[in-house]
Amino acid sequence: MQRGSSVDSSGSRFTPLVVVELASNTKEEAVAWLLSRIRDQQQNGGAELFVEQLGPGIDAQEKENPNIFLVGASWQRLLSGAEDVGLFKEYSDGSMRGFTRANKHNFKDFNGDGDDFLSMAECQYIIKHELETLRAKDETHVPGHSQAKLYPGKSIIRRLLSKGILVQIFPLHEKEELKKLSFSWYKKVKLSLQPLDDIRHYYGEGQALYFGFLEYFTFALVPMALIGVPYYLFDWEDYDKYVVFAVFNLIWCTVILELWKRFSASLAYRWGTLSRKKAFEEPRPGFHGVLGFNPVTGREEPVYPTAKRHLRIYLVSLPFVLLCLYLSLYVMMIYFHMEGWALTIHDEDPTFWTGILLFIPSIIYAVVIEIMNLIYRYAAEFLTEWENHRLESSYQNHLVLKVLVFNFFNCFASLFYIAFVMQDMVLLRQSLATLLITSQILNQFMEAFLPYWLQRRRNKKVIRKVQKQKTLEEKELPLEEQVRLEADMSTYLGTFDDYLELFLLFGYVSLFSCVYPLAAVLVVLNNITEVYSDAFKMCRVFKRPFSDPAANIGVWQLAFEAMSVIAVVTNCALIGMSPQVKAYFPDSETQLILWTVAIEHGLLAFKFILTFLIPDVPKHIQIKLSRLEFESLEALKKKKMLEAVELSKTFQ
Amino acid sequence: MQRGSSVDSSGSRFTPLVVVELASNTKEEAVAWLLSRIRDQQQNGGAELFVEQLGPGIDAQEKENPNIFLVGASWQRLLSGAEDVGLFKEYSDGSMRGFTRANKHNFKDFNGDGDDFLSMAECQYIIKHELETLRAKDETHVPGHSQAKLYPGKSIIRRLLSKGILVQIFPLHEKEELKKLSFSWYKKVKLSLQPLDDIRHYYGEGQALYFGFLEYFTFALVPMALIGVPYYLFDWEDYDKYVVFAVFNLIWCTVILELWKRFSASLAYRWGTLSRKKAFEEPRPGFHGVLGFNPVTGREEPVYPTAKRHLRIYLVSLPFVLLCLYLSLYVMMIYFHMEGWALTIHDEDPTFWTGILLFIPSIIYAVVIEIMNLIYRYAAEFLTEWENHRLESSYQNHLVLKVLVFNFFNCFASLFYIAFVMQDMVLLRQSLATLLITSQILNQFMEAFLPYWLQRRRNKKVIRKVQKQKTLEEKELPLEEQVRLEADMSTYLGTFDDYLELFLLFGYVSLFSCVYPLAAVLVVLNNITEVYSDAFKMCRVFKRPFSDPAANIGVWQLAFEAMSVIAVVTNCALIGMSPQVKAYFPDSETQLILWTVAIEHGLLAFKFILTFLIPDVPKHIQIKLSRLEFESLEALKKKKMLEAVELSKTFQ
Repeated sequence: MQRGSSVDSSGSRFTPLVVVELASNTKEEAVAWLLSRIRDQQQNGGAELFVEQLGPGIDAQEKENPNIFLVGASWQRLLSGAEDVGLFKEYSDGSMRGFTRANKHNFKDFNGDGDDFLSMAECQYIIKHELETLRAKDETHVPGHSQAKLYPGKSIIRRLLSKGILVQIFPLHEKEELKKLSFSWYKKVKLSLQPLDDIRHYYGEGQALYFGFLEYFTFALVPMALIGVPYYLFDWEDYDKYVVFAVFNLIWCTVILELWKRFSASLAYRWGTLSRKKAFEEPRPGFHGVLGFNPVTGREEPVYPTAKRHLRIYLVSLPFVLLCLYLSLYVMMIYFHMEGWALTIHDEDPTFWTGILLFIPSIIYAVVIEIMNLIYRYAAEFLTEWENHRLESSYQNHLVLKVLVFNFFNCFASLFYIAFVMQDMVLLRQSLATLLITSQILNQFMEAFLPYWLQRRRNKKVIRKVQKQKTLEEKELPLEEQVRLEADMSTYLGTFDDYLELFLLFGYVSLFSCVYPLAAVLVVLNNITEVYSDAFKMCRVFKRPFSDPAANIGVWQLAFEAMSVIAVVTNCALIGMSPQVKAYFPDSETQLILWTVAIEHGLLAFKFILTFLIPDVPKHIQIKLSRLEFESLEALKKKKMLEAVELSKTFQ
Repeated sequence: MQRGSSVDSSGSRFTPLVVVELASNTKEEAVAWLLSRIRDQQQNGGAELFVEQLGPGIDAQEKENPNIFLVGASWQRLLSGAEDVGLFKEYSDGSMRGFTRANKHNFKDFNGDGDDFLSMAECQYIIKHELETLRAKDETHVPGHSQAKLYPGKSIIRRLLSKGILVQIFPLHEKEELKKLSFSWYKKVKLSLQPLDDIRHYYGEGQALYFGFLEYFTFALVPMALIGVPYYLFDWEDYDKYVVFAVFNLIWCTVILELWKRFSASLAYRWGTLSRKKAFEEPRPGFHGVLGFNPVTGREEPVYPTAKRHLRIYLVSLPFVLLCLYLSLYVMMIYFHMEGWALTIHDEDPTFWTGILLFIPSIIYAVVIEIMNLIYRYAAEFLTEWENHRLESSYQNHLVLKVLVFNFFNCFASLFYIAFVMQDMVLLRQSLATLLITSQILNQFMEAFLPYWLQRRRNKKVIRKVQKQKTLEEKELPLEEQVRLEADMSTYLGTFDDYLELFLLFGYVSLFSCVYPLAAVLVVLNNITEVYSDAFKMCRVFKRPFSDPAANIGVWQLAFEAMSVIAVVTNCALIGMSPQVKAYFPDSETQLILWTVAIEHGLLAFKFILTFLIPDVPKHIQIKLSRLEFESLEALKKKKMLEAVELSKTFQ
């Protein structure tokens, strides 16, 4: 937190941490009211934070938004906020404990002045939490904006956000630290691992877990890739050995997913999010309904009938998703027509150019799939928004479910069709390779280079503008320009798309692993570039996101596990269909199928037992957790005992 | 708690609740030490309970154990104990909250004198808990018994128990209440449900949940039984309709298991065990090892290396179980030989008597199965004991796993063999019926009537003895005789065998439901008698068990769910094998099998989705639970706020 500090209205300087941007047409009384509420003491229901208006930019004559505010906090306020959000920090004995001011000196790294005890990301998270829990008292609406209704206990920030008065709220980057981080992360050529702790320090646990998973997943695929290469080079058609390869893959997939849980628990323990309790979840900003009473808190709050939401889900969303699936099926059939047409042309006139033509339909199809996924994504977001979920978590779950089902179908339907209806293994291999490679190239382009290029153009404009105004001695931009620049950067929308991409890659590797053993190699190569491009886009393309105290990768663990179950079925079926296996049962196809099914069931049972046998949390962390629990139980007992003694004294 | 009270050494009268029986050869100094520790004040590390030696019986000349002690407690002590064990009671606002003496007056049913606030079962559970947490201070061994080593913090009762100095510790029956309970439970002819709340009041939550499950399971089977009867009466061989029946059964099984979870959560919430926190688990009494340090508590405690336990499990227990399975397979083959032999005799000379002979092998086999199960049960207990598990829960899990696997195999192997290897549906039906009926009759006999008969003989002897001594005006036995009588009753070993029986019955119903639709009817009939015989044995045959604050049926839920998954596989296979279904695919057996497998996978997927979709805890209870959590969070926040204000005052 060494960057340029700012001056509070009271005259004291503070470090700006978070930027709040209000719409330019916000009424002055609303601004004044909001600022006074933010500055007000906690006893009076305020947030007790520092807040200050950002000075005008270099070319103030241009139409620019004056309503940009910088928010910071005193050191004491941050510590009390850390207690509010239930932050876990390392204790002097090496265990992780919930921070309390009462025994702050027993925490490791807590120095008198407290510098470096809280990371900047933590401070920003605390400020965000304090702003979000700034609640209306007896205001009925935002002053000057009568359409923005308020009721006692309503989060002011959420109402401003849902009414469009608050444009955005985002944490500031810290140039020095970012430079250091990006150097150790993606700039230097290295053989070392990603600096996960530094990533967590700068971006928070959710981001760090994603990059941890990406790295883990890449390493986990290396054995599959290594084994796959000789299969690809030497024994294209030797299914005998493919059986071994496929069985290894299946067990390996199960094992890596189970071990990831343990690894992620270790990370989450070290980062203090494993045993952190979730705060009570507020309604999401977009949630609307008739004012009623929350049955849990007893507070006034909008209420929306569950039955109505279910009607929307089952009568509108579900049919819509099914329609989209049908559409995707239709597009798939068109692709097969194109494929057949290309094949006939090649058969009639087999030249080099018609040979290339054979790949064209797959490439077009891959592009179309990506476009459909993108469009569907927007539709799914719109529908899920319209379903009006009360909680962000419920909204996310419904969105993930919709998107997952469609993307899975869209990406893999044609492969399933080729594998099990057409039973054409050569075409399957070719389609798999084309789809995989095309979608990788498209993804990298769409998610990193395109936004970067757009951002670069904007940055250059600003720098040129600044240089036009005055010749800077130091190369750094002044704070005002820097904030406005960051406010214009694209918003990072969370790890959803990144996980989705990994999920689909995992599908390409696992579902048909015995047909195309090179898939793992391609995915490993992709992941290595993915680490760099994702790191790059986090550091250079997007606004800094607020940190998200995640303890695991959430619903994605389930999605990956579901995929690995489906993979058992498809791989067994593929092996059963291979001519080499068929040769073992020359007389009876029935015997072959029964054996295949029996082995498949055995593998599935084995999978479930394995999932059950491997504990989700490593033993040494379990011990640490139960020691903490035991100590708090003992402390409680001692407290009760003392109370009882006092009580008995009073009675005597 | 109106029964005859006893006189404490201090002269005050108290209600005896729990009986502690020491071995007759216990040294006097050990007895005196134990009593003083039990009576000592809590501040000095005692249990602060009342304890008194039981007076001599009527024929004291006979060799009888003088070391029987009655334990009770003062009302204040019981309340503080209720806080220690974390008892949940109904609050004045209807929610369930952890009891604290500080706000005891806000709990419903709490009167000034506190009578009837705690049930007798709760008082007894509290006393058991207080006795068990009576810990050694600086004694190195039990006085007079140098082999019974102690170390600071070791539970005295557990050490006495493991060294055989403590023979038993059990709660006393309460004649009046028992009479009332047994009348409303099994004596009156009734159409009403079981008095679950009264059962819980008298026996505790574990027992009540078992009887609740038994009743629920019986009602849940009624639709299957009702649909099964016409199938049995009219359409023996019409597999078309069996498909419908089987699919109904499969979905029904999943649904009832899911709904049970919700029902059991409701019960557990009402009884205050749902959100009750588990206390820190102590090593079980039989656990031994070298003295070391517990990594969690940091206390001195025996330590036994996990690797050594794993060696015992994988190198001894596992091979032993496999050997037993092989033996069971061998016995099964002998049964098939006998079956074939009976069939040839019947074929040669088909009279009425040889017709009956056909059933003999099945009956013999059923009896042998029961005997093998019984012997194996002892072996499994011995082995699991020898594996030296530290925690009772871990011991129980390993025991249940061993017993379940063997019993499943032993009971169903022959049926699987007949169904899928011999493919003889007529024999399957006949074996299923014979096994089911024979094992039901044997079970009822073994578990209720035999113990009852033994107990009756003993009771009569005592009563005769008493009447010989003096002619009693009142028909009731004096306290001394009553206690000695109860001490001689058999010990109830928990709900393990009862659940196991239900598990196997569930297997008979679900695994082959499409072959023998009458199974559900038989199981319903059995369950109705089971309710009565189990109730009877709880009230009349066994010692009163300590209540067990269970929140659900534990590992049995998992076992039943596993069975219902296996049932999907077997039923689909049976349907696929039926000639009627085969007739739909005259040309290709492959098509038939593929369809069967596809439908089976579909059903399994549907089952898992259903399990996922139905929430485990009903919504209204979820709301109550989160309200409680929310309130405690708010209270914490308020407390912190106050502390902060005080802190700031101190600094000013």
